[in-house]
Amino acid sequence: MTVSSPPTPAALLTDLYQLTMMQGYHAYGLHTEEAVFDLYFRRAPFHGGFAVWAGLEPVLDLLESLRFTDADLAYLDSLGLFQPDFLEALRGWTFSGRVTAFREGSVVFAHEPLLTVTAPLWEAQLVETALLNTLNFQTLVATKAARCVLAAEASPYGGQVVEFGARRAQGPDGAVSAARAAFVGGAVGTSNVEAGRRFGLPLTGTHAHAWVESFPDELAAFRAYARLYPDSTTLLLDTVDTLASGLPNALTVARELRAAGHELRGVRLDSGDLAYLSGRIRAALDEAGFGDVKIVASNDLSESVIASVIGEGGRIDVYGVGTQLATAGGEGGGALGGVFKLAQLGGVPKMKLTGDPAKSSLPGVKQVWRAVNAQGELVFDALTLGDAPRTGERVSDPTNPLRASRVPGGLTWEPARDTVMTGGRRTTAPETLQAAQARARAELARLPAGTRRALNPHIYRVGLGDDVAGLRDRVAATLRPAAE
Amino acid sequence: MTVSSPPTPAALLTDLYQLTMMQGYHAYGLHTEEAVFDLYFRRAPFHGGFAVWAGLEPVLDLLESLRFTDADLAYLDSLGLFQPDFLEALRGWTFSGRVTAFREGSVVFAHEPLLTVTAPLWEAQLVETALLNTLNFQTLVATKAARCVLAAEASPYGGQVVEFGARRAQGPDGAVSAARAAFVGGAVGTSNVEAGRRFGLPLTGTHAHAWVESFPDELAAFRAYARLYPDSTTLLLDTVDTLASGLPNALTVARELRAAGHELRGVRLDSGDLAYLSGRIRAALDEAGFGDVKIVASNDLSESVIASVIGEGGRIDVYGVGTQLATAGGEGGGALGGVFKLAQLGGVPKMKLTGDPAKSSLPGVKQVWRAVNAQGELVFDALTLGDAPRTGERVSDPTNPLRASRVPGGLTWEPARDTVMTGGRRTTAPETLQAAQARARAELARLPAGTRRALNPHIYRVGLGDDVAGLRDRVAATLRPAAE
Repeated sequence: MTVSSPPTPAALLTDLYQLTMMQGYHAYGLHTEEAVFDLYFRRAPFHGGFAVWAGLEPVLDLLESLRFTDADLAYLDSLGLFQPDFLEALRGWTFSGRVTAFREGSVVFAHEPLLTVTAPLWEAQLVETALLNTLNFQTLVATKAARCVLAAEASPYGGQVVEFGARRAQGPDGAVSAARAAFVGGAVGTSNVEAGRRFGLPLTGTHAHAWVESFPDELAAFRAYARLYPDSTTLLLDTVDTLASGLPNALTVARELRAAGHELRGVRLDSGDLAYLSGRIRAALDEAGFGDVKIVASNDLSESVIASVIGEGGRIDVYGVGTQLATAGGEGGGALGGVFKLAQLGGVPKMKLTGDPAKSSLPGVKQVWRAVNAQGELVFDALTLGDAPRTGERVSDPTNPLRASRVPGGLTWEPARDTVMTGGRRTTAPETLQAAQARARAELARLPAGTRRALNPHIYRVGLGDDVAGLRDRVAATLRPAAE
Repeated sequence: MTVSSPPTPAALLTDLYQLTMMQGYHAYGLHTEEAVFDLYFRRAPFHGGFAVWAGLEPVLDLLESLRFTDADLAYLDSLGLFQPDFLEALRGWTFSGRVTAFREGSVVFAHEPLLTVTAPLWEAQLVETALLNTLNFQTLVATKAARCVLAAEASPYGGQVVEFGARRAQGPDGAVSAARAAFVGGAVGTSNVEAGRRFGLPLTGTHAHAWVESFPDELAAFRAYARLYPDSTTLLLDTVDTLASGLPNALTVARELRAAGHELRGVRLDSGDLAYLSGRIRAALDEAGFGDVKIVASNDLSESVIASVIGEGGRIDVYGVGTQLATAGGEGGGALGGVFKLAQLGGVPKMKLTGDPAKSSLPGVKQVWRAVNAQGELVFDALTLGDAPRTGERVSDPTNPLRASRVPGGLTWEPARDTVMTGGRRTTAPETLQAAQARARAELARLPAGTRRALNPHIYRVGLGDDVAGLRDRVAATLRPAAE
């Protein structure tokens, strides 16, 4: 399985202001100052308790290959905003920085630096837009997939998730990259052929209503499909009427396949009451001796629909989640609000204060520590300026300094992030998507059950060590205008 | 201004089942049967009354260039699902069909065929996924942009919308193609440099908080930016404190620029109470003689936030709409549920019945007619099998046959769609994005005001002529299983 990323975005996949600021840093000799930027989000998506981090490998591909082509420079020149010496300086420009980040598939939380770029100021500034674009979307979809997988696996009969959303995804690349992220989050396959090719993902598919309508009747259509694909046929039951027509015709074909030495793989429901219909169909299949025929469902599924179908006794084996997975839709979805904020420049801690305390940033070079208890469960994460927090040390809420507690004993602290790039090159070979999916599965299993909950989850704690909180308060004090 | 589309998706940007069905049609000699497929949606996005149709030109580009490459065929071969004769048949495959569609920028409604493909069955089947992928997303974002523009223009002082969403968009292409669609829907520019290059869109930008933090203080940062861009500077006011620091520093720079023969272009608000702050800032700028300095706002804007800011007396000139525009977020957004359904095969009308009446499709080759009254306003649309409906003819609701009315007199009927492709080639040169934007503007102005309303709009009527309704009922009767 490969991890090749989507087509590498050009250097111009950025906001105009990144380029006008780059020219400014260059003009004032600030461009080579060492900058530290942190990428983080302020709220987990879907009003949930966690996110599944995804998109790191495509971002490292991007950083390794980023260049301004002659055509890029000619276009910039045409805008009338850029001086010849600046455009000339871009000609040999590459990214030379260091990246520290969580590995793909890690379970991550609000307010912790997920990825930190240490690079000459103009390099770090340019890559903000492309990094956020990729990491926000990949993490959002991986999180949605994990939520759907957790919902499906809650059934006493088990359940798998496949990604079916290409036709509603946000553009061609939205479809392909969503399939990648869905796999990281635990989906077992996709219907998207291009995603299958690009990332080596398992492909899955049934047939459409148009197939049935192209034959004299439904039974003829089912037979024709099964004759071509005797070992991989999943029949769509609802072109005419699921129980009165689709089901008996599918049973006929299942018997005919078995008589010829094959087995029907599955049936698919695409409308109606999925809980009721799947129960009826499971009973009919079992009674007829087809206990191994899988029931696949589609039709506007989401983690909440999956939970509801299971809660009402539905017997679905495979959930084909389309729109809601490929676009990461639903409440609190659609976009992840990750940001990329300057934390230090030329060795001096920096922060944005703003009028809105929740939008302030954390200055300084932070380490992220993850506490594990004796049972191997994740307990909480902490940010410090150096070593792991000591037992008894005060840690405070990133958005509310008044909420603080003491670090309990009996915890093991692990560094949560790795240095994944130095000098603009990866430090290790790319990870496979299978490794990322396995990490997500393992970390989700180590989370407190309340934090995995889809609705009203327990909020996993991310605390600021006293050194981080103290630095923030000191920097903020130097910034406040005299009028305050 | 060019209309070049995003990078043309490969033939494999499709669902696996399209290819397995294609092989089936080929195996059974059905592949060359003439098929007619209609593309339509069942509900306007955002719980609104209309959609702005976008994405036609990229789709025509796609259809003209679609091919299976040797690499595509090698990948398909590796899946073990496809026979050599079928793969060989794909080697020379091109799209040879006819396309009838609304022109980009048209205002369109639920249940009307927006685009009809008439082509050999296997050609029409393959392109379903890619057509839906592009047209669903382009139409969704163009509609969102139009809603934001309508909200902004409701201000007594006017207002413009620019697209700022690259960092939260769904993948790199999601960002670039969203900028295109936003322009069709009425946005006047984008921050996305790649979108600017690819589509010739006007670029716009300010600076970020990091710029301010990279200088000894805010005033030094403002001066440095203005010195470089004396005729195109928009200063971000909230890095420290909008009113206590950003505003007085911006006024200082505005005076210095004027003394040097230039003018500050604008100031930007990115946090806080936009209505209150913009009112205070407008007054301060006007009082200081800077009535032409524009106020730009960003920070999670949407059509409802824009309306609220205007309703509370805000004085914003330019709304930089990011996440909500590039991802078409908000209630009823995130995805447009367009579908592509077989309407006729080999001259025989076809339909999908299903257990859910709202998901049934309309058989036959339909014409779309648009009624205009003496004032030039759009009144309603009607589907027939031929000529425009006659005065007094019965037209019925597509989802509820009991809701019907008679066509009033005094209307002029216009065919709503054009034949835009025959034999797999465009019939006319591509339209410019400017033409599409102008059409959207003109058609929105001709819509009943209640239909333009953002919340609880008047539902614009789309009626079925008696011939269409009669055909549907006859085809449905032949499909119902004997058990009913």
